[in-house]
Amino acid sequence: MKTIYVERIAQVREMMERNGWDAVVVSGSDPHSSEYPAPRWQQVKWLSGFTGEAGDLVITHDHAGLWTDSRYFAQALEQLEGTGVELHKTRVPDAVYIPEWLSDRAKVVAVDGLCQSVSAAEEIAAALGEDGSVVDVPDMFSGLWDDRDMMPVSPVTTLDVDCFGGDQRTEKIAWLRKWMLLKGVDRALLTSLDEVVWMLNVRGRDIEYNPLIISYLLVTHDSVKWFVKKENTVLDPDTEDSFSELVADGVEVEDYDSVYYALKDFSGENSAVKLFVDPSTLNFHIYNHIKEAYPEDCLVMGTSPVILKKAVKTESEIENLRQTHIDDGVAMECFLYWLEKEVASGREVTEWEASERLSAFRAEIPGNRGNSFENISAYGAHAALPHYSTPQEGSAVIAPRGLYLVDSGGQYLTGTTDITRTIPMGECTELEMEDYTLVLKGMIDLSMAVFPRGTTGHQLDAFARMPLWRAHRNFGHGTGHGVGYYLCVHEGPQSIRWQPNPQPLLPGMVTSNEPAIYREGRYGIRHENLILCREAGESEFGEWLEFETLTLCHIDTSAVLPGLLGPEAFQWLNEYNVRVYETLSPYLPADVEAWLKDKCGI
Amino acid sequence: MKTIYVERIAQVREMMERNGWDAVVVSGSDPHSSEYPAPRWQQVKWLSGFTGEAGDLVITHDHAGLWTDSRYFAQALEQLEGTGVELHKTRVPDAVYIPEWLSDRAKVVAVDGLCQSVSAAEEIAAALGEDGSVVDVPDMFSGLWDDRDMMPVSPVTTLDVDCFGGDQRTEKIAWLRKWMLLKGVDRALLTSLDEVVWMLNVRGRDIEYNPLIISYLLVTHDSVKWFVKKENTVLDPDTEDSFSELVADGVEVEDYDSVYYALKDFSGENSAVKLFVDPSTLNFHIYNHIKEAYPEDCLVMGTSPVILKKAVKTESEIENLRQTHIDDGVAMECFLYWLEKEVASGREVTEWEASERLSAFRAEIPGNRGNSFENISAYGAHAALPHYSTPQEGSAVIAPRGLYLVDSGGQYLTGTTDITRTIPMGECTELEMEDYTLVLKGMIDLSMAVFPRGTTGHQLDAFARMPLWRAHRNFGHGTGHGVGYYLCVHEGPQSIRWQPNPQPLLPGMVTSNEPAIYREGRYGIRHENLILCREAGESEFGEWLEFETLTLCHIDTSAVLPGLLGPEAFQWLNEYNVRVYETLSPYLPADVEAWLKDKCGI
Repeated sequence: MKTIYVERIAQVREMMERNGWDAVVVSGSDPHSSEYPAPRWQQVKWLSGFTGEAGDLVITHDHAGLWTDSRYFAQALEQLEGTGVELHKTRVPDAVYIPEWLSDRAKVVAVDGLCQSVSAAEEIAAALGEDGSVVDVPDMFSGLWDDRDMMPVSPVTTLDVDCFGGDQRTEKIAWLRKWMLLKGVDRALLTSLDEVVWMLNVRGRDIEYNPLIISYLLVTHDSVKWFVKKENTVLDPDTEDSFSELVADGVEVEDYDSVYYALKDFSGENSAVKLFVDPSTLNFHIYNHIKEAYPEDCLVMGTSPVILKKAVKTESEIENLRQTHIDDGVAMECFLYWLEKEVASGREVTEWEASERLSAFRAEIPGNRGNSFENISAYGAHAALPHYSTPQEGSAVIAPRGLYLVDSGGQYLTGTTDITRTIPMGECTELEMEDYTLVLKGMIDLSMAVFPRGTTGHQLDAFARMPLWRAHRNFGHGTGHGVGYYLCVHEGPQSIRWQPNPQPLLPGMVTSNEPAIYREGRYGIRHENLILCREAGESEFGEWLEFETLTLCHIDTSAVLPGLLGPEAFQWLNEYNVRVYETLSPYLPADVEAWLKDKCGI
Repeated sequence: MKTIYVERIAQVREMMERNGWDAVVVSGSDPHSSEYPAPRWQQVKWLSGFTGEAGDLVITHDHAGLWTDSRYFAQALEQLEGTGVELHKTRVPDAVYIPEWLSDRAKVVAVDGLCQSVSAAEEIAAALGEDGSVVDVPDMFSGLWDDRDMMPVSPVTTLDVDCFGGDQRTEKIAWLRKWMLLKGVDRALLTSLDEVVWMLNVRGRDIEYNPLIISYLLVTHDSVKWFVKKENTVLDPDTEDSFSELVADGVEVEDYDSVYYALKDFSGENSAVKLFVDPSTLNFHIYNHIKEAYPEDCLVMGTSPVILKKAVKTESEIENLRQTHIDDGVAMECFLYWLEKEVASGREVTEWEASERLSAFRAEIPGNRGNSFENISAYGAHAALPHYSTPQEGSAVIAPRGLYLVDSGGQYLTGTTDITRTIPMGECTELEMEDYTLVLKGMIDLSMAVFPRGTTGHQLDAFARMPLWRAHRNFGHGTGHGVGYYLCVHEGPQSIRWQPNPQPLLPGMVTSNEPAIYREGRYGIRHENLILCREAGESEFGEWLEFETLTLCHIDTSAVLPGLLGPEAFQWLNEYNVRVYETLSPYLPADVEAWLKDKCGI
């Protein structure tokens, strides 16, 4: 099986030989810098067998390496065995990143410019120095990749924001044009898929779990052009009527590939046209195509303003999110009740069955549009892999002892959820209970934070870690990521990580709060809620912010060591569980309601 | 009185007019980028009357502005009144710094290149753009400044490291040469005064409170040249013998001004000589002098390695520091006992008298070399100024109620101390007790931190703030600065602040821990200990570090609200006070010992 990858890499090396390239860099992304590319662009997987959600591959004549972060170290080592591809660790002390690694190993580096952002390509170019070069070879592997997938297509849904929250697309376009005026630009090209669909209040299903449509948006002061594959204009039957509103709002629908032409079309323009692009998501191929057409001072590059605007949820979005978390919590509680009952009955429930059952509970909720990512349903040692992928065949049976971890979320017309619960299935060891309690204390300490306006996530990250740190324990990933609104489950610009991030946390931002611990070969524990940043008043010392926990699903107290949790966190936990019960109970079937009441100690 | 400043600024403007300068930038520093310049270089004070320890002045034809940070806002507003100089706030959100401010207001900017670092001058030059220029005018104001001080001179002390800790100068020089080899440089010029005296194991008294000698050090692979004012070679009578060891160790003593010549002397060199300089402390005037002599690739600029090496204290230095803090703690306890008794007796003790008395207690300690900074002895509302300067005449009487704050430190041959205690002099209000407790909780929470190797100060800063934050309170300065070893009380590279600082905390680093609160017109509270970063073992999750509190002086519990402090911090406080009593009691006079026992609740 692994020989496939060895052969493919050998074919790439032949291509390198023919063309005089010293190295090929293969990104794990698509032409829009998406975090989760559709199968067509899963080039790293095709070349190496690695299926992690983050990873870039470098092939030279005598080395092949995969760069990925700690979430995927164990998985990479397993999947890369026998392929000849070596693991290079990122986000660790003294990590050597691809540009630096290449700097003294290559002069001519080929990339699929479609799948490399301008920023990434320019970092490589800078590292290669003046006598080096980055060669742009779009769809580089198509000649070798017989059964390569086509571009994904899916029907378009247009959102009625009166029902589903947020601003009207006309308001968003007016806001962007105002920003463009201030910036002094005539055109703005949006390349990131979540920015495009957010602007237009549309959603699709081009990428699994991510309600996106592969497309570009070009906004000028008098036009809005949406470059989308023709097939996408097949409308979702449920919402056909509203699509006409999109056109009525002045959006011109054009073919995906005509974006190249449109960017270079200056007809009717009197003077030099200034174009705004975001080099962190614009692909290198388009950039190479247009950079000759725009003089240097006419190509304005920077961070897209849509990223921040989208992250700060509106009042109506926040109201919907609160309701959505009630619905999602009901599904979670029904699932947890079902799981406990089934396992207690002695029936052999597998991780896969549990995962399917959870998806089914979510699917029953009106407005549900599937899951927001692949469920992580992991029992025992499997949960020690932070991003365990539950296999359909041969997944583990969940026994009535130890810990079961389930990390899942739903897409709804009214928001996106992301929750992790770790369930004591029966008796736990002292170490399991200690770890369970310390991770929980970290989650609670962060939940209780109050902070002045201007505070960034890196100032708060250690609160989720200190209870573990004081016991000489830790986890290797970030504490929190931004979450979209019926959009990607990971979004920027804010984060709660140890790495400095200059973006302050702002009222309206939704972030995950998910400390964890992983004991290789034994178990994994993660507690995750979504937290909303909100205003907490003013004092003579300034303006204050705090978190509101959006997620509503009880936290099992049977594995909690109260002395270790401490009185303040213990009180928070009890109040949270009471709030969960009181909020959800009207919506729960009688047996689940009675069970939850007991779980919440009421 | 203030008209002096108006006149001087007018004279500067005449000079600007004559020379065609649009602006003059006056730094608050000296030719070595010292934090505390000797009087000769207190140009900002001479021009504006501002006496704060940090502040830069900009004069244009229609504006004069002082840039300083929150520690000095109140002081600056008071001292600048009537001078026509306006306050520009730094380290606040949306602060506009001097280069940016100048960018659309000036083209030709004059600086005293001696007192401007290369980095600072180049930031200005970059902001002015290609058609702007920075003119280097050494000793620019000497013609206007009749009674300008001469260069400071003071006798030199050479340290016997066998007694006083640290590495031998020959070891330090060998270490630097090894670094130079790795870096591929032939010469290294050290310009920062604390780096120079640290390398040579010498100390002087050129700058008040800072045991420095105005000098440069040029190290090559076969020579060590110390450029120092002739007058400094007058030796401290106590240590005359050991000075010969300095020469015996191969240090050539040359005249201060001959550094210019030496840098351009290439006699005996076969090929291009590479020189290392640190642009953050090298002055712009020397740089202009030498940059023609070294081709671009021969002038290697970067951060001096001495900064980090000096910050990581050796085992012998750490041992000495522990003993030094016992001595310093004895002086503090004797002072606090005296103060309480005197005030209780009804005698009118002023802030100034208290300050003098404290200095006298420190001066009695063998090895004491004066204070490490100007004592802050501040009663009531005066303590609301974080850097209150106690006046000799007319300072406030310390009454038997409310809070008295004393921030002080000593220079010893065996280390530098820095401690703040806030003393409840009698009955306190509920708000005073709340603030006292919350600030203390922050200091204790940071003291108890455990963290993985690689953690930086900005990851920990918020622990000192969160108790205040949760009550919507805060303080406007950093939480901790590095502290030298019989050297400057402020040193880098580490810090504990909200601003990202990439330098991890390393075992052996000494940092202050000083959260605070300031209630304008009412009172100020600050609790400050020095904390040593040390190893705390290894686990499967990595290597662990923690803090050891070096400072030994009891913390008054009479203003503590135990419920607000919480059980864990309360226990820390009690254990700390017991440790203080047990460690200091053998060295205390009987009456002080008995009093301290009672204070520590034993």
